[in-house]
Amino acid sequence: MSKVNKVVLAYSGGLDTSVIVKWLQENYDCEVVTFTADIGQGEEVEPARAKAEKLGVKQIFIEDLREEFARDFVFPMFRANTIYEGEYLLGTSIARPLIAKRLVEIANETGADAISHGATGKGNDQVRFELGAYALKPGIKVIAPWREWDLTSREKLLTYCDTHDIAVEKKKGKSPYSMDANLLHISYEGGILEDPWEEAEEDMWRWSVSPEAAPDQATYLELTYQNGDIVAIDGEALAPHEVIERLNKVGGVNGVGRLDIVENRYVGMKSRGCYETPGGTIMLRAHRAIESITLDKELAHLKDSLMPKYAELIYNGYWWSPERLALQKLIDESQQHVNGVVRVKLYKGNVIVAGRKSEDSLFDDRIATFEDDGGVYNQRDAEGFIKLNALRMRIAADKGRSMK
Amino acid sequence: MSKVNKVVLAYSGGLDTSVIVKWLQENYDCEVVTFTADIGQGEEVEPARAKAEKLGVKQIFIEDLREEFARDFVFPMFRANTIYEGEYLLGTSIARPLIAKRLVEIANETGADAISHGATGKGNDQVRFELGAYALKPGIKVIAPWREWDLTSREKLLTYCDTHDIAVEKKKGKSPYSMDANLLHISYEGGILEDPWEEAEEDMWRWSVSPEAAPDQATYLELTYQNGDIVAIDGEALAPHEVIERLNKVGGVNGVGRLDIVENRYVGMKSRGCYETPGGTIMLRAHRAIESITLDKELAHLKDSLMPKYAELIYNGYWWSPERLALQKLIDESQQHVNGVVRVKLYKGNVIVAGRKSEDSLFDDRIATFEDDGGVYNQRDAEGFIKLNALRMRIAADKGRSMK
Amino acid sequence: MSKVNKVVLAYSGGLDTSVIVKWLQENYDCEVVTFTADIGQGEEVEPARAKAEKLGVKQIFIEDLREEFARDFVFPMFRANTIYEGEYLLGTSIARPLIAKRLVEIANETGADAISHGATGKGNDQVRFELGAYALKPGIKVIAPWREWDLTSREKLLTYCDTHDIAVEKKKGKSPYSMDANLLHISYEGGILEDPWEEAEEDMWRWSVSPEAAPDQATYLELTYQNGDIVAIDGEALAPHEVIERLNKVGGVNGVGRLDIVENRYVGMKSRGCYETPGGTIMLRAHRAIESITLDKELAHLKDSLMPKYAELIYNGYWWSPERLALQKLIDESQQHVNGVVRVKLYKGNVIVAGRKSEDSLFDDRIATFEDDGGVYNQRDAEGFIKLNALRMRIAADKGRSMK
Amino acid sequence: MSKVNKVVLAYSGGLDTSVIVKWLQENYDCEVVTFTADIGQGEEVEPARAKAEKLGVKQIFIEDLREEFARDFVFPMFRANTIYEGEYLLGTSIARPLIAKRLVEIANETGADAISHGATGKGNDQVRFELGAYALKPGIKVIAPWREWDLTSREKLLTYCDTHDIAVEKKKGKSPYSMDANLLHISYEGGILEDPWEEAEEDMWRWSVSPEAAPDQATYLELTYQNGDIVAIDGEALAPHEVIERLNKVGGVNGVGRLDIVENRYVGMKSRGCYETPGGTIMLRAHRAIESITLDKELAHLKDSLMPKYAELIYNGYWWSPERLALQKLIDESQQHVNGVVRVKLYKGNVIVAGRKSEDSLFDDRIATFEDDGGVYNQRDAEGFIKLNALRMRIAADKGRSMK
Repeated sequence: MSKVNKVVLAYSGGLDTSVIVKWLQENYDCEVVTFTADIGQGEEVEPARAKAEKLGVKQIFIEDLREEFARDFVFPMFRANTIYEGEYLLGTSIARPLIAKRLVEIANETGADAISHGATGKGNDQVRFELGAYALKPGIKVIAPWREWDLTSREKLLTYCDTHDIAVEKKKGKSPYSMDANLLHISYEGGILEDPWEEAEEDMWRWSVSPEAAPDQATYLELTYQNGDIVAIDGEALAPHEVIERLNKVGGVNGVGRLDIVENRYVGMKSRGCYETPGGTIMLRAHRAIESITLDKELAHLKDSLMPKYAELIYNGYWWSPERLALQKLIDESQQHVNGVVRVKLYKGNVIVAGRKSEDSLFDDRIATFEDDGGVYNQRDAEGFIKLNALRMRIAADKGRSMK
Repeated sequence: MSKVNKVVLAYSGGLDTSVIVKWLQENYDCEVVTFTADIGQGEEVEPARAKAEKLGVKQIFIEDLREEFARDFVFPMFRANTIYEGEYLLGTSIARPLIAKRLVEIANETGADAISHGATGKGNDQVRFELGAYALKPGIKVIAPWREWDLTSREKLLTYCDTHDIAVEKKKGKSPYSMDANLLHISYEGGILEDPWEEAEEDMWRWSVSPEAAPDQATYLELTYQNGDIVAIDGEALAPHEVIERLNKVGGVNGVGRLDIVENRYVGMKSRGCYETPGGTIMLRAHRAIESITLDKELAHLKDSLMPKYAELIYNGYWWSPERLALQKLIDESQQHVNGVVRVKLYKGNVIVAGRKSEDSLFDDRIATFEDDGGVYNQRDAEGFIKLNALRMRIAADKGRSMK
Repeated sequence: MSKVNKVVLAYSGGLDTSVIVKWLQENYDCEVVTFTADIGQGEEVEPARAKAEKLGVKQIFIEDLREEFARDFVFPMFRANTIYEGEYLLGTSIARPLIAKRLVEIANETGADAISHGATGKGNDQVRFELGAYALKPGIKVIAPWREWDLTSREKLLTYCDTHDIAVEKKKGKSPYSMDANLLHISYEGGILEDPWEEAEEDMWRWSVSPEAAPDQATYLELTYQNGDIVAIDGEALAPHEVIERLNKVGGVNGVGRLDIVENRYVGMKSRGCYETPGGTIMLRAHRAIESITLDKELAHLKDSLMPKYAELIYNGYWWSPERLALQKLIDESQQHVNGVVRVKLYKGNVIVAGRKSEDSLFDDRIATFEDDGGVYNQRDAEGFIKLNALRMRIAADKGRSMK
Repeated sequence: MSKVNKVVLAYSGGLDTSVIVKWLQENYDCEVVTFTADIGQGEEVEPARAKAEKLGVKQIFIEDLREEFARDFVFPMFRANTIYEGEYLLGTSIARPLIAKRLVEIANETGADAISHGATGKGNDQVRFELGAYALKPGIKVIAPWREWDLTSREKLLTYCDTHDIAVEKKKGKSPYSMDANLLHISYEGGILEDPWEEAEEDMWRWSVSPEAAPDQATYLELTYQNGDIVAIDGEALAPHEVIERLNKVGGVNGVGRLDIVENRYVGMKSRGCYETPGGTIMLRAHRAIESITLDKELAHLKDSLMPKYAELIYNGYWWSPERLALQKLIDESQQHVNGVVRVKLYKGNVIVAGRKSEDSLFDDRIATFEDDGGVYNQRDAEGFIKLNALRMRIAADKGRSMK
């Protein structure tokens, strides 16, 4: 092990990262700085202070990053209608680059030469933390205890706590799942989910009721968009993180946003995950709706063709990379006219678009109408359009090529 | 107008195409051959015979194409998880190339030198019919009456019927919408839908109940896949068109498959459409689920990156084209291990994946587990993986480049 | 023909567009405004004034657009290493949007309600002119005489000149080819080129000597780049159009830049074209060279993957489109560190990169070296990198899948 | 180190791999099987037998793989017009998967449980060998001595030879470059090339004369294509490897095929390489030429859009992967009509296409002609084609959007 003087740890206050504090102090003989952020996970972050102090930490950073997270990460991502592998809204992935950035900034502030995190060596999160850290501070040293230590089971961790005088909270109803939450979603892995044939148990879900348990009356919302971002709900102006919080709440009540998938991790294995993303599920559908009347066809198709790449970059941890930044320029440029209002209906798990309108609408009812359009559109133009588009195939067929 | 001897018309038996029969006879002084196909639109096709006879048609083709449609068009398309503009399942688009193919084949059989159809000059269907026809028979003449005649309103059509002795059925409850149906879906356009802010009326929908009206008990289905296609439902082997019919029925009962969008037509305008695709909605979700455990990650991502292009080709009418055929080779190649069973739960509009299993599963619980894996996966490998993936960014950051 | 009051014509001063002036006056009974631009075609534009006057034109626009053309069109295009169909440097395509823009601006200035051009109905240029005009002034009327009139052969044109008192210059050595030139290239079509098996005749080429006739001594150049654009040659600062002029000259002398291809026109046919692009040929190769040391790998690959699309947009006439503008944002963003110097050697048709250097170089000889690197790069990292990249394939192979 | 019984080594007979034989025997206490292949590197492989015997190797495999290499690797790759980063013809990359495949097959035959190679931990070749091996035999153990041992300099290697009685040949004129050769190319790295500003020395190049030293008379060749592959030169039928050998020879004589670039390695660093690929350079240009008259436009553009991905896969070592196999299906499908003859002119480094012809040509001079075409193509069709393609932009501009 190379010499480390001071390390900034992404500290949740939970068992695992508390063990890491001690383990770092002991194994690297270095000072540990803890960093605990409120990114909307729905748990108090302030209690982490006392826990860190008890572990001998002197520099403790506790921050509310919800606004930055929503404004600079979640919202830009939704401008691209981003989905990974056709299903996943990237709730975990999008939170990591912000943590990586703050770890590095705190390292710079405190003169630390290393960062550390509690992600395992099998997952995507280690990659996301570390790629971000290396991109922002190339000389940083990264310590990933889960890849180094021999505390490879829950029992060994508890024994370590015992021998190192780390308080273990006895939570009643400890979840059998590995969970992670932030403003955008909560995720579940492990336990019975490791068999993809097993249905998730109803009592696993925490942010939403089941569609069955949702109200029998639908809820309607009007979402106001400006440059591709929601700026108001039902006419009330809201900051980005307030938008997400509000939508999470109303979505969760209506049984919206559950997802149960098997996904491909960057490190090469398939993994089962369950997610609740009530607000994000509404946002994705509504954003497509507002784009449907305001975005140019070819620009929309260009965005669609690039979306899988953009999603992959975020999933794999390349938020802080030149290629993501360049794609973002294109995406943001596309949103300049994405303004207007979308009306959505939430009902027992369904998000239904009930209307969209915009001063910037490109929907032209004079042209689209099935009625007489008074000559705005000359139907005879279609003949030439088709004939020339067919020309290459006619020539080929004429020379005997089969198109079947 | 150039001289035409015999023309094959895609004939529905309805008012518009009946007028076209007469109009062709009158204006082109040619023999009209009618072709009426059952592609699952849910209406009897046999009555078209008497109507055609009454219009003086001598060669009348009435065919049941449901099996071919499902097997050779719908199923191959679903292997690619095809969606146009993030939402549309291409129900209308995928039926046109089959009609085009049969029109051309009947023209060859009957010695006709032209084909005709009842699609307007503003829509996509004219393009799909004609591109297909030209690709399969380059010398064919296409007559598109809606682009030529002056019967530009319903009144003029009715007057034409009057003066030409064409029987007009008085349907009660004539829909104010322009509708089109086949095995895969039914579509609605026009009427109040021409204002994208207006919500579709409940009584417009024909194939599905509303989520509100669906049963309070969920329905579970087990779908068996072979090479990417569903071959059995709940253990019962079914032909492709039977699969779709069965899923339409159970989906419709459960409020599944409604869609209300504004889409970009190939001819350059935005257009509002409502669709019911109960079976297709289930198939899309279930196909992604079976692929999630059986398809290689990079092959899945390659497919995802090509899907928008493939969808665009089908939407725009290029089914019979060299580029669609080449993409299909890639897509079909990808499906050789896409075998297994998906369990889905249908409940009030929701299609929820409840389980997936396969002899060909690539999900490896020994590796994916959060528990001790006995050394199957070496977590230290992740360090090298991350370090080399970060190298280019570290070098750049080291030279002072900002990744923010 | 709908009523036109005033039309702005892209006027070269040559026979064809002189006939068009008369034909427009006669057939549309409208005033004709001529617009003649120097975009580096290498012929005087001022003589067009007298010719236009003689044809009765009152508003005559003659402009030197070389600087704007180079700066705002050619240079941005070269930032993307743009090539159409693997070979063509888009010399004709890139000039059209500028002409379209000026036609529209002059129409706005002079109160004209139409524009006109001398491009035929079979080519790409009509599309490029007209798409640009419609995008910039949607209500404009476009008159394309070649698609309307019956002057379909050279003889008929000459007869028209005769009967309308249009002076026909007797050029000696009239080329049998259809030619077009601007700052970036000169093109040849028609004549014996219509047989793709025939080699172009040596005396067709005008801007370059043959490799055989080029000097026996190589010429070296140093090209200085700033943000992806050449700003100096051999240390001398030059404006964009001066860069191209200089490179054309030195390239032409050294036999550089001839191209003989069959390309696919947007309107659906294949067409043989020969091109001389001496400067552009040097610029493409040198730009790749400067990017090779300054551009991030993944950003470079992203650019490469988008280039065919970008080239297609320009070839097809979509310079003035939302999708081209969005792509340009991405491309321009990528060039912020593309600074430095490239040394090229020109010799008898060859453009050979002889060196590249940059303050912004990402080439790191400490890491790249085959010698001992003192631990900068840990070779053992490669093992983990490979192991995890192989994981998905190992799992698949382990389950019996063949990768062959 | 885990226990290894028998290892198959990719053995060149040179110093490095001879040291590896000894080192493996000593450090892994295992039996070493050597595998030496003639893949057209231009050196005798038979002498490797005596050297291996002297090192105590009992199972020695020496094989001529030139035909398989050309037929199953090089030719399929050229069907896609494959170039990495706009310049590199992938000469090294394409040879590795064949070596990997034979290493695995020999391991299966001889009951070996490991393979080994002499590639360093900084390069791409280790990745290509190992990804291939893992994909074809997931349980194989790979030993990469350069990543493990401490023989990190030439001096240490020589000392090792001394102490282990390994004969070191004193080559006169030992090249200062790291070189690699096969049928497709020879590569040079290291030495003064580690400074990208330094021009390569003339005496480095081995397969081609300089353009300056090439004959003053051009050489013409006629290449006959079948399904995208060259099957005859100047009318003489040749096997794939004979085609490449012949083209290398005539290309090299004419100064064709030198390349000097900085490329991005998969492992994250930039690296300078010089390459001679005389035959490949001719093949790329000629293949584009035969495709230019026989391949459908949209299929050609689809191929072009996928080529960078395909090239990246090969460069990065994913020849044996599901995604490369799927892409190959598409590519091979595209070649069914790529038949005909291309005439090329070689002159002092230039490869000039002088003609192309084909029974399957889609070039239609009746349509392409600038002369009167007798109505084959209706120029008025172009108006509708343009109008509808412009529609979306006209609507947008009409609503006040700027396309500039």
